[in-house]
Amino acid sequence: MEELCVVGKPIPKLDAVDKATGRALYIHDIRIPGMLYGKILYSKYPHARIAHIDVSKAKKLPGVRAVLTAQDIPPFKFGFYKDNTPLKGGKVRSYRDEVAAVAAIDPDIAQEALDLIQVHYEALPAVFDPEEAMKEGAPLVHEENRSNILKLPWKMHFGDVEEARRKAKYVVEDRLRVTWVTHCCMATSGCIAMFDASQNLTVYSNTQIPSLAQRDYLEALEAMGLKGKRVRIIKACIGGAFGSKLDTYPYEYIAILLAHATGKPVRIVFDRKEEFVATSGRQPAIIDISQGCDENGRLLFRDVRMILDNGAYTSWGATTPSVMMMPISSLYRVPNVRYEAICVYTNNTYSQAMRGYGNPQATFAIESSMDRLAQEMGMDRVEFRLLNANGPGEVTPQGFRITTCGLKECIEEVRRRLDWGGPKEKGEGVGIACLIHVGGGARVYKSDGCGTIMKMDDFGKVDVFTGATDMGQGADTVIAQVVAEELGVRIEDVKVIHTDTDVCPWDVGAHASRTTFVACNSALGAARKIKERLLELASRQMGEPPEMLSIKDGEVFCKDAPEKRLEIGKILRKAHFSQGGQMLMADFFYDPANENLDKSFRGNLSMTYTFGAHGVRVKVDEETGKVKVLKYVAAHDVGRAINPLLLEGQVYGGALMGIGYALTEQLILEKGEVMNPNFRDYKILTAKDAVPIETYIVETMDKDGPFGAKGIGEPGCVPTAPAIANAIWDAVGVRLRELPMTPERVLAAIKEKRANSG
Amino acid sequence: MEELCVVGKPIPKLDAVDKATGRALYIHDIRIPGMLYGKILYSKYPHARIAHIDVSKAKKLPGVRAVLTAQDIPPFKFGFYKDNTPLKGGKVRSYRDEVAAVAAIDPDIAQEALDLIQVHYEALPAVFDPEEAMKEGAPLVHEENRSNILKLPWKMHFGDVEEARRKAKYVVEDRLRVTWVTHCCMATSGCIAMFDASQNLTVYSNTQIPSLAQRDYLEALEAMGLKGKRVRIIKACIGGAFGSKLDTYPYEYIAILLAHATGKPVRIVFDRKEEFVATSGRQPAIIDISQGCDENGRLLFRDVRMILDNGAYTSWGATTPSVMMMPISSLYRVPNVRYEAICVYTNNTYSQAMRGYGNPQATFAIESSMDRLAQEMGMDRVEFRLLNANGPGEVTPQGFRITTCGLKECIEEVRRRLDWGGPKEKGEGVGIACLIHVGGGARVYKSDGCGTIMKMDDFGKVDVFTGATDMGQGADTVIAQVVAEELGVRIEDVKVIHTDTDVCPWDVGAHASRTTFVACNSALGAARKIKERLLELASRQMGEPPEMLSIKDGEVFCKDAPEKRLEIGKILRKAHFSQGGQMLMADFFYDPANENLDKSFRGNLSMTYTFGAHGVRVKVDEETGKVKVLKYVAAHDVGRAINPLLLEGQVYGGALMGIGYALTEQLILEKGEVMNPNFRDYKILTAKDAVPIETYIVETMDKDGPFGAKGIGEPGCVPTAPAIANAIWDAVGVRLRELPMTPERVLAAIKEKRANSG
Repeated sequence: MEELCVVGKPIPKLDAVDKATGRALYIHDIRIPGMLYGKILYSKYPHARIAHIDVSKAKKLPGVRAVLTAQDIPPFKFGFYKDNTPLKGGKVRSYRDEVAAVAAIDPDIAQEALDLIQVHYEALPAVFDPEEAMKEGAPLVHEENRSNILKLPWKMHFGDVEEARRKAKYVVEDRLRVTWVTHCCMATSGCIAMFDASQNLTVYSNTQIPSLAQRDYLEALEAMGLKGKRVRIIKACIGGAFGSKLDTYPYEYIAILLAHATGKPVRIVFDRKEEFVATSGRQPAIIDISQGCDENGRLLFRDVRMILDNGAYTSWGATTPSVMMMPISSLYRVPNVRYEAICVYTNNTYSQAMRGYGNPQATFAIESSMDRLAQEMGMDRVEFRLLNANGPGEVTPQGFRITTCGLKECIEEVRRRLDWGGPKEKGEGVGIACLIHVGGGARVYKSDGCGTIMKMDDFGKVDVFTGATDMGQGADTVIAQVVAEELGVRIEDVKVIHTDTDVCPWDVGAHASRTTFVACNSALGAARKIKERLLELASRQMGEPPEMLSIKDGEVFCKDAPEKRLEIGKILRKAHFSQGGQMLMADFFYDPANENLDKSFRGNLSMTYTFGAHGVRVKVDEETGKVKVLKYVAAHDVGRAINPLLLEGQVYGGALMGIGYALTEQLILEKGEVMNPNFRDYKILTAKDAVPIETYIVETMDKDGPFGAKGIGEPGCVPTAPAIANAIWDAVGVRLRELPMTPERVLAAIKEKRANSG
Repeated sequence: MEELCVVGKPIPKLDAVDKATGRALYIHDIRIPGMLYGKILYSKYPHARIAHIDVSKAKKLPGVRAVLTAQDIPPFKFGFYKDNTPLKGGKVRSYRDEVAAVAAIDPDIAQEALDLIQVHYEALPAVFDPEEAMKEGAPLVHEENRSNILKLPWKMHFGDVEEARRKAKYVVEDRLRVTWVTHCCMATSGCIAMFDASQNLTVYSNTQIPSLAQRDYLEALEAMGLKGKRVRIIKACIGGAFGSKLDTYPYEYIAILLAHATGKPVRIVFDRKEEFVATSGRQPAIIDISQGCDENGRLLFRDVRMILDNGAYTSWGATTPSVMMMPISSLYRVPNVRYEAICVYTNNTYSQAMRGYGNPQATFAIESSMDRLAQEMGMDRVEFRLLNANGPGEVTPQGFRITTCGLKECIEEVRRRLDWGGPKEKGEGVGIACLIHVGGGARVYKSDGCGTIMKMDDFGKVDVFTGATDMGQGADTVIAQVVAEELGVRIEDVKVIHTDTDVCPWDVGAHASRTTFVACNSALGAARKIKERLLELASRQMGEPPEMLSIKDGEVFCKDAPEKRLEIGKILRKAHFSQGGQMLMADFFYDPANENLDKSFRGNLSMTYTFGAHGVRVKVDEETGKVKVLKYVAAHDVGRAINPLLLEGQVYGGALMGIGYALTEQLILEKGEVMNPNFRDYKILTAKDAVPIETYIVETMDKDGPFGAKGIGEPGCVPTAPAIANAIWDAVGVRLRELPMTPERVLAAIKEKRANSG
């Protein structure tokens, strides 16, 4: 294997020191001269008619520059289902509905103005349970639809599930439930919107989707009568995203409308309560799953139905079934698969993308069911998984072409490290769960592309403008590593600019764990162009053919006479500072050769797929129901670890997020109202709750990946909950089918089991 | 001639509204979190030994973060002659010498700290007159040189001047003097320097030379022990430059050193007094010129010697002789030319580039002398000029290859508009003076290049990253026009980014009136690449060969069936949003095929040359000496007027600056001290002093210019002073040989003439 200098090295995130020392500028830190502070008035009811809004007192308050309600703004809708509006007119459909907004010269005045707005509501009957909402005669969230069930195409069927069910020797059926959790970004959401003299819009934002947000805002501008204008997105330093910034939200449109109304920059930054209440987390679901296998344990079918609580409006949460299809069709070899999902409007909050994008929910069901099926036929749970595990070269029922696959190696390593068959104390148990995820982009949009522009200065320093979004995951660092490796320069010589749509080329966004794969391939494309020209220049100056030259540590040298070498800066300056001077610049647009799913949801969605297995040893306190994680092993096929340090960070972070999802985290809604919008009552794991996590990295060197790498952003949180559920079962013989698996629920299950067996 | 849609149109500067409404961010407006305020302590003597500096009180002042003197900083020198240091140790050589610097949390504290610094000087004998300074035994400004005369190579001789002098029928000789004037930028100089955690440097600056400043700062960093770091220059909105920001100054290095010492961003922004005292204006000179012609009036020789007061240090002022050579060798056809310039250190202020870069000084001498020679032989002054005027196809003694040349047309138009031979009232007179200047770049540095990167979004909007610097002249606007024209889009669809070395490619700087020519050619190169690919895409989508397609108003259409058309955005989206998606990006580095001057100062410095003639009608009040400009005509060969509005602005501004140079402006130094560092005592022309200026534009469509254009930044101020001097002579028969031609000097000349003739 070729020896690499920069790729494969555990280089700390390039902005780590700036973040640690407070130099990094988050949206919270940015101040624009003349900037106003925007604030939003939310609904006091989960469902109500707005009889009247009186803003007269608010408008008169000194320092207030604008007060907007639905009647002050053009009628336009946005969101995946085009069912959302910036400010709600006519009626409110949830507690987070935006009723009015204010811009003032300071935040206290803005708050005071909100308090002066009088809204008269007439309460309407509301519905909070999706199964209730599906029933005839349930209160309608959007009357014009005549039903609360969204017309969405989430149905797939490959093979013949009913036929397979008949042939199956063993069959298990389960109903599982998952609820709302939220991203808990350390930096709350926010933006600053401003118009220039020509009515072009600039938005400072912490979006994960600058190019798509740009398009969304363009549509808003068009509705505002501003057609053909320019929209510029400048990304602030993003303090976590995890999918929460994958859509545009009402607050952004409100900031834009306030900026337009006042002619001033308007800043809206959420406080922590708003972050809990008015952003969208992971979609809750009721999951019915059945699986069956033959007498040897070979999976014959998988059949899944889901009801998703869509909340009052539709963001990307409603599209997570498109990703849930992936593990349902393709985690383990299963010839007959069926899946149907129904999304139902309720008067609850609505959901969004969140790390894994449906995969954690689906995998919780699949891997819980896998354990049940192994038990049903009396097979070792690991052996059962190894028997059905995916392998390289496989084409799954959904048409995914698996190139590299280290799943079996991951399972075996987890088994070894967990001491799977070894002794256990009372109350101890081990569990395992596996995952598949897209690892080579995901063509969910018509483009899965990412552009790169690159330039090299007279000293061999490289500037890389990428479409990619660094939201804390370290995209800038891995892109810099890949470029430095390809060009033979030091990592310090590469600067990655990823913050400004005026400068950075297009990219579909930071989703689907695609950034390392797609953005690094894009950067590599540009770097190769520059390298070729650099070697040509060196060849002319050194009198050696380009193919005999190589670059390392900032010097070009002859492969067969390494003492013959020339510093890159010298080569570049000589080429530049002479007549007909040249400088090296290049661009590249990489759009992977993956496929959009067809109408039957078949197609090779990603250039490659990533696999992994998590194993956990728990101890369950049978008196309290408390589950303690004793050991946690996360094994992942990552293709190639471009940066082992950041990669492990992704796995640690994902697994901890997964442990929270499994055991503690829950956004509690009572009749549509969030009851725990703060970090005291919402139980995210903190540093002191962190359990030691062992990572094991399988490098399968994917042929299409940049230096062989696959994406690893989301997988870490995918199999955690079922691994723990399976370990709890192993420990105390109870099957937890609802998340989070709180002490109360575990204890209740233990008591129920005792009662049944007693 | 091809009909153009955007080029040739009088489009207001794209940032005009932002500037008029206060949105534009000048260096004065920029605040960085944690920023400190730097201030500089200047010398109290023109020449003195620094016996002792006591900074202890200043350091103790609360809010002070750093106090630096020469002994706190690494020894490094900068400037053209490497004779300058950020802070002066050992001795001071002028009143503007920087002795100490302070960074504090607010500007008042910084000022208070300066007041607490005690410097003990031992005065040294000083020298303020360059002719005195040249003498044996004069006080030495830099002892190590053993002479005040700088070793600079300013000597050229083409043909045989002595032989020609012998052959000449008519010869005139004159000694003229020009003095200090300064740029009077409405926005004073300033910068903010800051280091990141890795000790990379960012400087917010209003430099005209971002790429060269970057290199200068890199040298400083190296001296500070920070080798291999990155330097980023972010240009604030520049409120005028005119050459004043063409070099790096001590204050910039001081800001960098203070930022490094404190670990905080440090801002140094000059007040108006500092701007007058501590920036560098136009070089003063004593000019001896003689010219001779044959009996028919054909110029035979021109012989010029100059002594330049270099001041205490050396910036670009010392190199203006290299540009003075241009009019001396090439304004009018003159076969034998000789020039020698001596730069002499004094204890005065030192000089810099200023609009025209020596050309106004040289042309004052040449065109005054031309008038004298015409009078000497009794020929009409206009006829004499027409007889000797340059024409297309000519190669001048210095090796300049003149391609297009509209000089004669300019002269004739001035003659016509001034009613040259017409009646004049008593005290009225007319004068004319001509100019040559580089119009197609100037290869004064090893590169005359400019890079462009361009990208087009899904809606046909174009981002252009240019190396060019917009300092108020409208570079962004003309570049946008050229790109819009080439790509067939609207000017609003093009955004030019010219503010950040991380983003913008290299450019040698905004000097030599090169920006329109070089930067627009560079932008055109990139636009042509994009256009070619766009037409290929359109060809595939429209089923027509690319050569049959054209673009206009954002639509591609068939040349022979214009109803067959497709909107650019649609073409781009179709190409992007499909498998193997493409987006259009391009780069181009344009380095003109002009030549560095050889050791004899011969070479085709510029791709093309620009010509012009200014004519003026004045009325001289013989009682007061006051000169009133009655009419002013400025005729210029500009190749092509890309933007007539901005072009006229350049000519108006240049001519007014020239009138100030001619009549009112003067930085008065007494024993090295600036006596008038304010706008009350320094007589710049204000709006109410502005005279109506008629412009006449000759479009010679230069083959190498972008759409035929030549540069026009500097020419407007070049021939103004001699035109006025010549008109004064015509009005009252006195020859003013010293600038400015104040009422006192005019009156003195009139009295002297009366005395001589009395």
